[in-house]
Amino acid sequence: MIIILKNNPEQRQLENLRSWLLSMGLHIHESKGESTTIMGLIGDTSSVDMDLIRALDIVETVKRITEPYKNANRKFHPADTIIDIGGHKIGGGHFQIMGGPCSVESKEQICLVANQVKNAGANILRGGAFKPRSSPYSFQGMRGEGISLLLEAKAQTGLPIVTEVMDISQLPLFEEVDIIQVGARNMQNFELLKELGRMDKPILLKRGLSSTLEELLMSAEYILSGGNSKVILCERGIRTFETATRNTLDLSAVPLLKSLTHLPVIVDPSHGTGLYKLVAPMSLAAVAAGADGLMIEVHNDPEHAMSDGPQSLKPEAFTELVKAIEAIRPFAYKTNN
Amino acid sequence: MIIILKNNPEQRQLENLRSWLLSMGLHIHESKGESTTIMGLIGDTSSVDMDLIRALDIVETVKRITEPYKNANRKFHPADTIIDIGGHKIGGGHFQIMGGPCSVESKEQICLVANQVKNAGANILRGGAFKPRSSPYSFQGMRGEGISLLLEAKAQTGLPIVTEVMDISQLPLFEEVDIIQVGARNMQNFELLKELGRMDKPILLKRGLSSTLEELLMSAEYILSGGNSKVILCERGIRTFETATRNTLDLSAVPLLKSLTHLPVIVDPSHGTGLYKLVAPMSLAAVAAGADGLMIEVHNDPEHAMSDGPQSLKPEAFTELVKAIEAIRPFAYKTNN
Amino acid sequence: MIIILKNNPEQRQLENLRSWLLSMGLHIHESKGESTTIMGLIGDTSSVDMDLIRALDIVETVKRITEPYKNANRKFHPADTIIDIGGHKIGGGHFQIMGGPCSVESKEQICLVANQVKNAGANILRGGAFKPRSSPYSFQGMRGEGISLLLEAKAQTGLPIVTEVMDISQLPLFEEVDIIQVGARNMQNFELLKELGRMDKPILLKRGLSSTLEELLMSAEYILSGGNSKVILCERGIRTFETATRNTLDLSAVPLLKSLTHLPVIVDPSHGTGLYKLVAPMSLAAVAAGADGLMIEVHNDPEHAMSDGPQSLKPEAFTELVKAIEAIRPFAYKTNN
Amino acid sequence: MIIILKNNPEQRQLENLRSWLLSMGLHIHESKGESTTIMGLIGDTSSVDMDLIRALDIVETVKRITEPYKNANRKFHPADTIIDIGGHKIGGGHFQIMGGPCSVESKEQICLVANQVKNAGANILRGGAFKPRSSPYSFQGMRGEGISLLLEAKAQTGLPIVTEVMDISQLPLFEEVDIIQVGARNMQNFELLKELGRMDKPILLKRGLSSTLEELLMSAEYILSGGNSKVILCERGIRTFETATRNTLDLSAVPLLKSLTHLPVIVDPSHGTGLYKLVAPMSLAAVAAGADGLMIEVHNDPEHAMSDGPQSLKPEAFTELVKAIEAIRPFAYKTNN
Repeated sequence: MIIILKNNPEQRQLENLRSWLLSMGLHIHESKGESTTIMGLIGDTSSVDMDLIRALDIVETVKRITEPYKNANRKFHPADTIIDIGGHKIGGGHFQIMGGPCSVESKEQICLVANQVKNAGANILRGGAFKPRSSPYSFQGMRGEGISLLLEAKAQTGLPIVTEVMDISQLPLFEEVDIIQVGARNMQNFELLKELGRMDKPILLKRGLSSTLEELLMSAEYILSGGNSKVILCERGIRTFETATRNTLDLSAVPLLKSLTHLPVIVDPSHGTGLYKLVAPMSLAAVAAGADGLMIEVHNDPEHAMSDGPQSLKPEAFTELVKAIEAIRPFAYKTNN
Repeated sequence: MIIILKNNPEQRQLENLRSWLLSMGLHIHESKGESTTIMGLIGDTSSVDMDLIRALDIVETVKRITEPYKNANRKFHPADTIIDIGGHKIGGGHFQIMGGPCSVESKEQICLVANQVKNAGANILRGGAFKPRSSPYSFQGMRGEGISLLLEAKAQTGLPIVTEVMDISQLPLFEEVDIIQVGARNMQNFELLKELGRMDKPILLKRGLSSTLEELLMSAEYILSGGNSKVILCERGIRTFETATRNTLDLSAVPLLKSLTHLPVIVDPSHGTGLYKLVAPMSLAAVAAGADGLMIEVHNDPEHAMSDGPQSLKPEAFTELVKAIEAIRPFAYKTNN
Repeated sequence: MIIILKNNPEQRQLENLRSWLLSMGLHIHESKGESTTIMGLIGDTSSVDMDLIRALDIVETVKRITEPYKNANRKFHPADTIIDIGGHKIGGGHFQIMGGPCSVESKEQICLVANQVKNAGANILRGGAFKPRSSPYSFQGMRGEGISLLLEAKAQTGLPIVTEVMDISQLPLFEEVDIIQVGARNMQNFELLKELGRMDKPILLKRGLSSTLEELLMSAEYILSGGNSKVILCERGIRTFETATRNTLDLSAVPLLKSLTHLPVIVDPSHGTGLYKLVAPMSLAAVAAGADGLMIEVHNDPEHAMSDGPQSLKPEAFTELVKAIEAIRPFAYKTNN
Repeated sequence: MIIILKNNPEQRQLENLRSWLLSMGLHIHESKGESTTIMGLIGDTSSVDMDLIRALDIVETVKRITEPYKNANRKFHPADTIIDIGGHKIGGGHFQIMGGPCSVESKEQICLVANQVKNAGANILRGGAFKPRSSPYSFQGMRGEGISLLLEAKAQTGLPIVTEVMDISQLPLFEEVDIIQVGARNMQNFELLKELGRMDKPILLKRGLSSTLEELLMSAEYILSGGNSKVILCERGIRTFETATRNTLDLSAVPLLKSLTHLPVIVDPSHGTGLYKLVAPMSLAAVAAGADGLMIEVHNDPEHAMSDGPQSLKPEAFTELVKAIEAIRPFAYKTNN
């Protein structure tokens, strides 16, 4: 961390700053120019609050040189994290596809789609039980009952399941869930992240709609620093000015995250684009960019199509896509190149 | 709501759609053009899930004509909502300034600033007890103890207090808090919003970093539809490409919100800009645009300045600003003009 | 186009509107609901100015159903446009890589890189002569002399060349240039676009930093409607809140553009990310998403590295990348699937 | 400027860098930490190309401490620039309102509106002759004839005029125009900026849709460094995710620009919001924030309303607004406080 001081800093305040920095176990390397004095801080600065320093009257600006996350940082943990999900590994060269409907609606529906997902060759079942909806008048999901139905589909097919939690109070219902998903709107629900950090269960952490990659990694750090090392990151589109797609899928996040962290990185092209026509090309692009997995919405039986999003694939299209994904995988970018 | 159908829609699916719409109590007005058929829906469409309709194979697109919020809608509630906060009214021409430190740090600090805020002429004390921080290594606030200290400052000065909740489980601590603040990162924490809808207490709802005004109003609708009508909206800056300010304060939100809703609208120029130099001009601008109040960070005693943000005003500057605000208020834009 | 009228529109104004629409050769299909009247316009609405209609007192809102571009529209021109560049085709299944340095600096430099690009297997040479720079104090390019040097490199290697024009007055210098590039900052330089529409030469049109895909297609329409049908579109990253990359490369633009238009679509991962480490993964991702070509910056001799951007690949890395691109191409998404 | 080097930089490259920096007349102050070496550059770094340095293998990152603009910089030119426009001053406490129609349409129209603008108390007439339109099929303005009509309106009323140039080749038509406007889409048309730098005429430079304030100041620097010191900056809204307004008017730009530069800063609330209802409140807010002027669209005679945007005020509303602006001005924020 570098602190750039204003011209002629008030000496007493400068002394206070020096003492405070030393009290945090840091070494200070000062360098005086004609009009600027620069303080270089040496040591572990991840717990130094930049805002506090920037607020001081004598400080012009503060710049970080090293990343503010430690547990998530590949520099300190060079080897890829590999997470086992009911016998299926993700990360470190292992690739997984998570498929399923947007929402769980009935036993018949979720079991039918689960079988379709399995037959298509995917290993993990997704399905929403608690649904974050911008309107209080929209369907809020089957909630606890939805999780029970997911567990039935798991029992029938053997597929591990991933589903979203929206509040700490719901966590007791997630005991048999294989991966707990944190949605984009909760990426900075820090109390929830702390609680997940105390669990021993894989967490799928989705990037917030307007979160930087550094903020995503800091949210992962909340979980990791609590003791839970099983975090999967998910790029799912960011909010931009473009209205042709629901979100702008930021695929450069995949290789960039994989260079910054050892955690597995997957992509959700269904929410990331909001258009079913774009799911296949963006799935292939995500694989090519080096993603460790995909999360894809699979459409219900068209006879009961009333409840799926405009971004879901029909089962046949999903089956074709899984084949195309397997075909392109050997030619994908390898991060360690 | 208008549904625009694709060319030559499959008849059975069209019948399904018609039946489903009628079953929701809506009237359908169809209009057939050469290449397009348009269905106009008449009735209460606020609970119609646009995504479900858009997902149908036969549908080209869906457009809303009326707003999806009812309780927050000025069309149905033309009179301004006026909220009483410990004897101080906001809304309907009543204006309030909320001032105080970013974080509560000690009894001395919060009581000192509370007195400064009161002497400056402001009526409500702000102060953070639970602090949402992007890093797990940053100061997380004094939490429950911070609320106790705020209540002490309230007892000493008579100022009602506003402070932020981060999770449902913390709500029991907020019984004597006068206004519960929902922070930008929790604007779409729907489980929390539902819980606040069951309370009888003013809620200060901050706009999310990348939330549209319609989404802000839908989040207010969660609280209002639960039965709690005391919602204050707060513009606090949105995330854009500009890096010169921490956020881009969207002051056009003030007159626009006030035309769309009857709820009071305030502005937080401290977080909205992130730069103390901009707090005064943007406060005056917010007042001129017709805001019902301001939330402003006031700096601690400079001797202990280690813990305030770069966006806080010193007490003297705050006192000057309150005077300038009072002077400009008679010349501000009146929404009902 | 659909015009939604306000309640109880003033009759004389309504008559004026009807007459004006009829005078433009449109048919009007009116549909009266309880509280809303909807006018559906039938005919060629591409020249109807929505803003003019929206401005009328009696109009609530106006929505387009059909796209405002005709010449660029795949609906009216289903077959892929194929453009021949000095014997090398692009579009309709033909794929091209354009490589070269950011700026032309000397005869030695551009001829050296041209040979490296050719040996790597790319067919088109890029290089900047007129350089748009945000600072007047930065290197502005070799300008006319730079174009002469590019032509020398073309003569030596046989590679066709692509280079950027910044102003109409420079066009006489571009007579022997094979592809004229319009940079992101000039995507809406409409006078320049009109002039290019009068030429018979391939135009590489880059998406503006904050341009929607519809705006990009409208800019292409300026060129096409002038009579020049040889337009290549280029996604090169948009401006978002994310600062980890220089721009956010919007790869979903590739399949989306290819469904909306018959024009070839290429990707520039060098400017699109601003980081050389991301060029290879994003190149592969662009190919997987169905791009018709790539434009990649290739680094100078490292001994003279003073003038290349942080986003350039060294020649060896470029050679490796061309091989990886060729390997992945057969598995890329096919738009016509 | 600070250059942060990578660990163990290659010595020959480091020597090259040092020589190159010294050859530019800079002094280097090196400071070696345990894992990082920092080079502080002392001297005029405004012409140093950061991208060139960042591209070097041995460089970790480069940070500017001083602004890259000199002529526009208030640090070097503390006194406000005051510009005289046909006897009406702007800047340094002088305030001007520019009013008029979006487009010039006929002699009757522009002369009528000019008189209305004058009677309302505004001093400068605006009107578009060359119109940048995203569609080639939309009205492109009366062009040269439009300028002639503006000059007639000027002759009739004595009001100086401001109108937009779109290309260098049009400049000869602007000889008698009082202020030449550079539109948002041309803010980085650097060839045009250079040409305007050679003129002795006030330039109104509008902020680009996705331009940072630093980029706006760099574009001003293009004009100033060419010798033309009469530049007026204009905030007119930036492009964000919000769709309720056409653009997001960034009023914090006003006090921030005025602290960074000595140039006058005005606001265009008509384009900045795109909604006529927001023009009045945002005008008052702009004044309160310290703007030096406003540019406001005034509606034609409603009988011929076909050609004005949804953001124009009717003459009576404009007259009321001018009064409200005059009333609030004494209470506006003073930058020098």
